Amino acid sequence: MHKNQGPVYYNDYLMLDQFLDCQKPLSKKYADSENPEAHDETLFIIVHQAYELWFKQMLHDLNSVLAIFSKNKVEDSDVGTVVQRLERIRKIQNLISGQLEVLETMTPMDFLEFRSLLIPASGFQSMQFREIEIKLGLGTHNRQNVDREFFSGRLSQKDRDKLTALEGSSNLFQYLQEWLERTPFTISKEFNFWNEYQAAVKLILNEDEQTVLSNIANLSEQQKQMQIENLKVTKDTFDSLFSDEAHQKVVDAGGRKLSRKATLNALFIMLYRDEPMLTLPFQMMTLMMDIDENFTTWRYRHALMAQRMLGTKIGTGGSSGHAYLKKAADNNRVFLDLFNLSTYLIPRSRLPKIPDAIKKQLNFNYV
Amino acid sequence: MHKNQGPVYYNDYLMLDQFLDCQKPLSKKYADSENPEAHDETLFIIVHQAYELWFKQMLHDLNSVLAIFSKNKVEDSDVGTVVQRLERIRKIQNLISGQLEVLETMTPMDFLEFRSLLIPASGFQSMQFREIEIKLGLGTHNRQNVDREFFSGRLSQKDRDKLTALEGSSNLFQYLQEWLERTPFTISKEFNFWNEYQAAVKLILNEDEQTVLSNIANLSEQQKQMQIENLKVTKDTFDSLFSDEAHQKVVDAGGRKLSRKATLNALFIMLYRDEPMLTLPFQMMTLMMDIDENFTTWRYRHALMAQRMLGTKIGTGGSSGHAYLKKAADNNRVFLDLFNLSTYLIPRSRLPKIPDAIKKQLNFNYV
Amino acid sequence: MHKNQGPVYYNDYLMLDQFLDCQKPLSKKYADSENPEAHDETLFIIVHQAYELWFKQMLHDLNSVLAIFSKNKVEDSDVGTVVQRLERIRKIQNLISGQLEVLETMTPMDFLEFRSLLIPASGFQSMQFREIEIKLGLGTHNRQNVDREFFSGRLSQKDRDKLTALEGSSNLFQYLQEWLERTPFTISKEFNFWNEYQAAVKLILNEDEQTVLSNIANLSEQQKQMQIENLKVTKDTFDSLFSDEAHQKVVDAGGRKLSRKATLNALFIMLYRDEPMLTLPFQMMTLMMDIDENFTTWRYRHALMAQRMLGTKIGTGGSSGHAYLKKAADNNRVFLDLFNLSTYLIPRSRLPKIPDAIKKQLNFNYV
Amino acid sequence: MHKNQGPVYYNDYLMLDQFLDCQKPLSKKYADSENPEAHDETLFIIVHQAYELWFKQMLHDLNSVLAIFSKNKVEDSDVGTVVQRLERIRKIQNLISGQLEVLETMTPMDFLEFRSLLIPASGFQSMQFREIEIKLGLGTHNRQNVDREFFSGRLSQKDRDKLTALEGSSNLFQYLQEWLERTPFTISKEFNFWNEYQAAVKLILNEDEQTVLSNIANLSEQQKQMQIENLKVTKDTFDSLFSDEAHQKVVDAGGRKLSRKATLNALFIMLYRDEPMLTLPFQMMTLMMDIDENFTTWRYRHALMAQRMLGTKIGTGGSSGHAYLKKAADNNRVFLDLFNLSTYLIPRSRLPKIPDAIKKQLNFNYV
Repeated sequence: MHKNQGPVYYNDYLMLDQFLDCQKPLSKKYADSENPEAHDETLFIIVHQAYELWFKQMLHDLNSVLAIFSKNKVEDSDVGTVVQRLERIRKIQNLISGQLEVLETMTPMDFLEFRSLLIPASGFQSMQFREIEIKLGLGTHNRQNVDREFFSGRLSQKDRDKLTALEGSSNLFQYLQEWLERTPFTISKEFNFWNEYQAAVKLILNEDEQTVLSNIANLSEQQKQMQIENLKVTKDTFDSLFSDEAHQKVVDAGGRKLSRKATLNALFIMLYRDEPMLTLPFQMMTLMMDIDENFTTWRYRHALMAQRMLGTKIGTGGSSGHAYLKKAADNNRVFLDLFNLSTYLIPRSRLPKIPDAIKKQLNFNYV
Repeated sequence: MHKNQGPVYYNDYLMLDQFLDCQKPLSKKYADSENPEAHDETLFIIVHQAYELWFKQMLHDLNSVLAIFSKNKVEDSDVGTVVQRLERIRKIQNLISGQLEVLETMTPMDFLEFRSLLIPASGFQSMQFREIEIKLGLGTHNRQNVDREFFSGRLSQKDRDKLTALEGSSNLFQYLQEWLERTPFTISKEFNFWNEYQAAVKLILNEDEQTVLSNIANLSEQQKQMQIENLKVTKDTFDSLFSDEAHQKVVDAGGRKLSRKATLNALFIMLYRDEPMLTLPFQMMTLMMDIDENFTTWRYRHALMAQRMLGTKIGTGGSSGHAYLKKAADNNRVFLDLFNLSTYLIPRSRLPKIPDAIKKQLNFNYV
Repeated sequence: MHKNQGPVYYNDYLMLDQFLDCQKPLSKKYADSENPEAHDETLFIIVHQAYELWFKQMLHDLNSVLAIFSKNKVEDSDVGTVVQRLERIRKIQNLISGQLEVLETMTPMDFLEFRSLLIPASGFQSMQFREIEIKLGLGTHNRQNVDREFFSGRLSQKDRDKLTALEGSSNLFQYLQEWLERTPFTISKEFNFWNEYQAAVKLILNEDEQTVLSNIANLSEQQKQMQIENLKVTKDTFDSLFSDEAHQKVVDAGGRKLSRKATLNALFIMLYRDEPMLTLPFQMMTLMMDIDENFTTWRYRHALMAQRMLGTKIGTGGSSGHAYLKKAADNNRVFLDLFNLSTYLIPRSRLPKIPDAIKKQLNFNYV
Repeated sequence: MHKNQGPVYYNDYLMLDQFLDCQKPLSKKYADSENPEAHDETLFIIVHQAYELWFKQMLHDLNSVLAIFSKNKVEDSDVGTVVQRLERIRKIQNLISGQLEVLETMTPMDFLEFRSLLIPASGFQSMQFREIEIKLGLGTHNRQNVDREFFSGRLSQKDRDKLTALEGSSNLFQYLQEWLERTPFTISKEFNFWNEYQAAVKLILNEDEQTVLSNIANLSEQQKQMQIENLKVTKDTFDSLFSDEAHQKVVDAGGRKLSRKATLNALFIMLYRDEPMLTLPFQMMTLMMDIDENFTTWRYRHALMAQRMLGTKIGTGGSSGHAYLKKAADNNRVFLDLFNLSTYLIPRSRLPKIPDAIKKQLNFNYV
């Protein structure tokens, strides 16, 4: 605990003199008799600054999570800390998603009053947001061609270099993969989770097929085709878990990023999350999905907002705006593989039984 | 004011005996020693019932709005009522969007416990939601082929007939169009808004072009092409306002649904919304956009949730689930034309001045 | 519309170098081998800065509203602008109320790590929040003795002087009162709203009494007393509208702040809000109540949070914390008189009919 | 996993024919030419039904939590389930708190149209809400005199009997207390947490006193008194942990409900929550506080809403409405003792060190 070092005043502690001196509307700077200050530019600045402020907090927590994972051994008590910090990031996302509703109190007409002054500035130039994306695991190499071209074109050389450097370091996705690959329990003399799971799946898939077929009578020819096609896809996807070759094919086609080993171990955690030792790991993976989903929703809502503000106009940064953002929302998923794990879940009643010796290891020492 | 008709008891007034007797999990009905009741099925039922309950309220308000518009003359005081009711629908949407977060406390593993019992039931069979869509203006004829096929295939003959009948009545989109077409003020002896606006636009477009061109130097060849293409598109879009032929082309290509007259009058309201008489009409159109946007976001988040719950599995109703829902989110827009009006906004300083005689008509009698 | 003045870069426009350099945890400054930086102090700083950032926006909008009211004549189109700006303040309140949930991710144990360093800083020293309160109409003279003593004690002389100066200027409550007192329509040769309303009330009160009495049979003696007491209070409250003397008594007892004339005219707006000319004034008063209610809820939730963080410990600023805050939540109401107007509402069917000549004045010129 | 038992239709599964037939406005039933249906009564019914629907879900989860605690031994994997279910209750609370905003779209004038028909029905008659309160641990014996009298007076004999019976069973507060009292680790040969903690506290309290005294110079006489008083109170409160007699005094004065043993063990969990075995118990206690806080906020906001709707009028149930509700918000706290534990937290650096042997027991078997 730190000792008091002398009296502190609220205004000084928060550096408010400096902090509250950063809102300088250009429409005020260039105001003249014909062009008065645009009242809503202050809102525009403050909304974006609020994003940046919270991005800083997200980075503060994200960095601490990466530091924990960078250690050779992640202690069990560390997983608790990771959960706490990711939970905070998730809550910050929920909070700032509400900022769009405040921003929309500025109507398109009000935006027009100062919009031209901002060209070619653009939200794509937010370095902190790029940093968050990269540290989560969304490097520019994950972005599509147009995308990469687009981003690098908008940034100053200095900023571009900074992001390139960042991409050289480990990100949360990679750390998660390594951590998952180290998960014990799944293969040992007493228990081979992979084999037992594969056997259970075979049985279930057969039953699933029966279920669909028995309901197929009332469907049109077109729907019938669709469902049969779906069944085949499901089967193929399962197969991709059971051989390196099939797995690699899915990876090559862009359908999976996680290694086969990490995928299966993540599945193990999802299936047996009720075991005390797997509860926090399960919470951790759930939070990673939440965070991914929240950014996706945020990008999508942002796209709708851009459309509303600009119609089909060109964005201040020269992008075609909303169409671009919508595509980005769908493509820029970091933890999609965790979502897709649901494909492979099987009911508790069908789960391979964990031998007592291993079950004990998953529990606390004190009993 | 109604007179009291005798003492009322909370439980009876809300018909709670009947209301709270409607939650009957199938996993309880079919429970046996091997297959106990699935704890989370109650949540699944209640979440969906909560949606239906609020859909009923939305329909209650939406129907009253349609009734107001169906009158030969919409009084100014009626517009206030419409605004109040649409505002309520918007707030209900905000409320129920939060239900997804509650539903997600059921994990995919928990869903698996009772999922098979529900086949082939599906949320697509919600008649009230279809009714809301149709009454807003999203008939099956607005849906794409696959879409139409898909929906009708899932419904009982009785329900299908009911929806078909509903599509025969006027919807909010049509009423809005008719109401917009009746807007006075835009063309008279003293003032031809359409001509004056066209002249103002010409000037601005030229300037816009200059702005983009002056910033084009630092761009790559690819970006340059994109921007020049964008400029041309903007110009063509404006042209579509100024001739019936160009307008019809856009309509035929699926780019606009509103008539040319309604489009221009809606634009008039947006541009001159500060005039007292146009304030409530502007609020009304804003709420229609809000409602459209909220349903769109809701469908999108619903798609993400389905993906998380099922991965790439087949939905209980046999749909490929999340991919379908995402496409639906993008396509099923009712008031997209109002969003796109932002394309045609021009700054207040460039607005054609309204002659005093008309300005007075837009104001209150009392001065 | 402003002309572009040269290319703008996102980072420069938002002054991010300066803005993101204002988060300096004291636990980092004074860190040593035994006392490392407290990870959560950054969150503590950022949450409070986010409040201050949004307070600045609220003041920006609130000041513009005060400027409008300070004019000799408030145009009808101005009321639309006031509604828009108050609506924004309301939405900002909703947004920042969510910050408490983020702050609560810092547990009391984590707070302890750096709490002692902050003494005696306190949120009560937020000058912007005080400014908002004063400009809404909550001067220190409205605060109770302890309260006033408490505040002035915590502030630097400079800040104290600044607030004292602010209290000399007109606030929103005063402006509202003056504006209400100027409302036309309520008394003229054709129509005396006050007399007609008083007559209507008399009839209704008699009926209300009958209703209560007819249901009183099944009640216990204690409840019976309570209800009869309530009836009397209601009657007395109504009487306070109908004579200057009774009104003054209520004012003297601290039960009302608004003048009698303003009270009755506000009531007129509430009762006849469906008339086109009164729709926006009604929206405006509703927003004032919303804003008041939101600050009240916020103070209350803040009190619960303080209790959770500190238990019954002494706050860093030396206050007894949550008990103080809860009392403040209840006492510091600016627009309580508007809430209390509901006491005086009567059903539409009992409303005095407005003569046609006046009804026409409440409508638009164009018909 | 349950097997499919034949095709299911959405409408039948949710029993919508019955469910959507429960909204019967009295103003519609008694409508005549002079008194038409009140449009907003449907909203009033649906909002209250939505509460009841979610109360049913809360009870479903709360009952399952009580069932877990009623077992002789709560397994560690059970604590995970409890956390999941309490988390759901918390999210449902967040969801339904938003219903107030929807309800407030009904203005006081609109409520007046049908209010008299409802007399003397009242939300206080919600049996499910009472059941939740009782099962959390808020029995009528915890309510104050007036309160108890008030409630029982409003209910039918049948309902009153049902609640009385419920109060005979164990509630969450009691179960928590018993569970806390069984916590191992805190007293053994190697480690006496109570003694070591007491020693640490003594040191800290002395320092705290110094801190306050050193800042007391600039304070007024009144503030000085207040702070010195505060210090004494803090010291006394700490003393109440260290002797049965002092503890009992606090209990008798209504300042604590938890037993001394449970209090100290709860404190142990809070202080050492980073130990793997204490992470979930800590999450569980946090959720109990969240749930308590949410009901408290909800009651408070409900009070503000009642004030807005009725002013100082008598509620339909004959209560004086908002004043009552506000008092209820403050008094009806179930887990206040957990909040107050913050009073007794001490910094990590001052925590008694847990001996290795015990630390190992708090960890997983697998290392």
